[in-house]
Amino acid sequence: MTELGERSLDWAGDRIRMVDQTRLPDAYVVLEIDDVAGLVDAIGRLAVRGAPAIGVAGGFGVVLAAQEHGAGTEQFAAAVEAIRTARPTAVNLTRMVDRVAACAAEGPEALLAEALAVRDEEVAASLAMGRRGAALVEELVSEADAVTALTICNTGGLATVERGTALAVIRTIHERGRLALAIATETRPLLQGARLTAWELERMGAPYRVIVDAAGPALLSRGMADVVLVGADRIAANGDTANKIGTFALAVAARYASIPFVVVAPESTVDMDTPSGDAIQIEDRGADEVVNVRGTQITPEGSGALNPAFDVTPAELITAIVTDRRVIRLDRGETPATDTGG
Amino acid sequence: MTELGERSLDWAGDRIRMVDQTRLPDAYVVLEIDDVAGLVDAIGRLAVRGAPAIGVAGGFGVVLAAQEHGAGTEQFAAAVEAIRTARPTAVNLTRMVDRVAACAAEGPEALLAEALAVRDEEVAASLAMGRRGAALVEELVSEADAVTALTICNTGGLATVERGTALAVIRTIHERGRLALAIATETRPLLQGARLTAWELERMGAPYRVIVDAAGPALLSRGMADVVLVGADRIAANGDTANKIGTFALAVAARYASIPFVVVAPESTVDMDTPSGDAIQIEDRGADEVVNVRGTQITPEGSGALNPAFDVTPAELITAIVTDRRVIRLDRGETPATDTGG
Repeated sequence: MTELGERSLDWAGDRIRMVDQTRLPDAYVVLEIDDVAGLVDAIGRLAVRGAPAIGVAGGFGVVLAAQEHGAGTEQFAAAVEAIRTARPTAVNLTRMVDRVAACAAEGPEALLAEALAVRDEEVAASLAMGRRGAALVEELVSEADAVTALTICNTGGLATVERGTALAVIRTIHERGRLALAIATETRPLLQGARLTAWELERMGAPYRVIVDAAGPALLSRGMADVVLVGADRIAANGDTANKIGTFALAVAARYASIPFVVVAPESTVDMDTPSGDAIQIEDRGADEVVNVRGTQITPEGSGALNPAFDVTPAELITAIVTDRRVIRLDRGETPATDTGG
Repeated sequence: MTELGERSLDWAGDRIRMVDQTRLPDAYVVLEIDDVAGLVDAIGRLAVRGAPAIGVAGGFGVVLAAQEHGAGTEQFAAAVEAIRTARPTAVNLTRMVDRVAACAAEGPEALLAEALAVRDEEVAASLAMGRRGAALVEELVSEADAVTALTICNTGGLATVERGTALAVIRTIHERGRLALAIATETRPLLQGARLTAWELERMGAPYRVIVDAAGPALLSRGMADVVLVGADRIAANGDTANKIGTFALAVAARYASIPFVVVAPESTVDMDTPSGDAIQIEDRGADEVVNVRGTQITPEGSGALNPAFDVTPAELITAIVTDRRVIRLDRGETPATDTGG
């Protein structure tokens, strides 16, 4: 635990150490993973989640594959492929595994150096998003003595390596002594807000409250938050943003109440090949997650459900997008395609 | 069970029979209540809920009090007072108990006749709301072959005596063969949608799906429902409507997506002494309901929560209010104060 410190996962000499996110918030369990099979299992059962965190874990996985099989062998290639496909839709995982595996010819030290570089870049990106986002929030809500920020899902250090994206901004505001309150929506169906964001806020000593998802828009309508800060799964070229289900509801309520709505995500989330949100397919994750809450069925036997995993917030409802490289002021007509000199 | 039929509660010769709503949807248990103590307990622990249903139960309670103590005795008066105050904020309970108790001087038959009249009026009101609401929906979504209706919380026969308010409209549309799909939000924190509305829809053989609350606004933004139908706790003189937390989110999303948003509630819900929503106090029900789901804690130990029980939807976001007496077209500038000849 000492070695992990603020990080959700890290490299420890010859193994990966990571917080088992499936056990939070009930227990803080650190997994020691020294082979590829263990890593594939951990990724598959969501012990590690969040695109950046999975990407870093995958990079370290390539180092484990080289330890087990020797870099460049046939078994090494098979192990790398097993890591690449441990989560079918995680683009970041594939990208980072490929990047590290490309160093295989240069030997094990080069592999490790590249995997550590992936980690360090993620950490630096979170720091940059936190600072840039906090500065933007200061500007947007300059009249408030201290900031009440509402957020959804988990976008903290657990989803990256440390600090996170939207939650990194809240953390930076808190470190500067300017956080009045963080409000975390519980984020049904999987409760990442109630389980993980609350745990991170508790751990950083920030003032916070959990709410049911339906209360977010209502609190905004009563002016009970100064800003909404959310992450992103994908940002289209026009600024339309796909994120956890419930994000759109917060955006449309924030607009109604004239409260700034800010997306915080790494530059890699911007997909210039997706012209707008219309081109984004909404995955339905099936009824099980809806009709059960942590193992208890809440509906009559046999109830069906609709379970869209995320929604699309139109660019026109977004005040700004903060990445590790720039701030895109959608409220001033900029889009991700705008050259902001970032 | 035969005697109850479609009703959530009824009078059975010398006792009240009611569905124990705390056991739904896991078990259909009919309570036989033949004394005041049993009724006060049932009301207190929410075995019966919904303002109209509680009012009817309270009226029958006065008959039980007369059976136990003789109408007009001191013990009778004490028993009536115990029923009146079984739920502190239930205006309907007080009103109906007082109405039935006022007949005490005329003897036990008069008491029973008045209690049965209260019941019959509630049944008639639900029928009227269902018909009037279905006709309005036909008018509002005339281009659709069949109607997909989204609703929140439980506004069905369980909350009244039979049929309900907003869910009565959905039921009437279904009986007319015009319901494509009912979408029920689960309605955290207490899950009345997932538990009770799903149970009622299943029982009436209607096509339905349950969703997490956060998915409602997103589905509206994608045009996946034709109309939103909700109940009301209180309607102000200008049309602002207090209802279950999450109602505002649906209303603001419906407006963004140009989907009609209709409130269905008995005329008694209109409070002309409340000029607007600003005058409505929002009760916070404490953290327990938020940090626990059906007995399982979902947050870290010690997490605080905000738990507003309801929200206020501004009149400008409401297309129409349907009562048992009239349709108030807010979209045409009418308000509850408008004389619509109803």
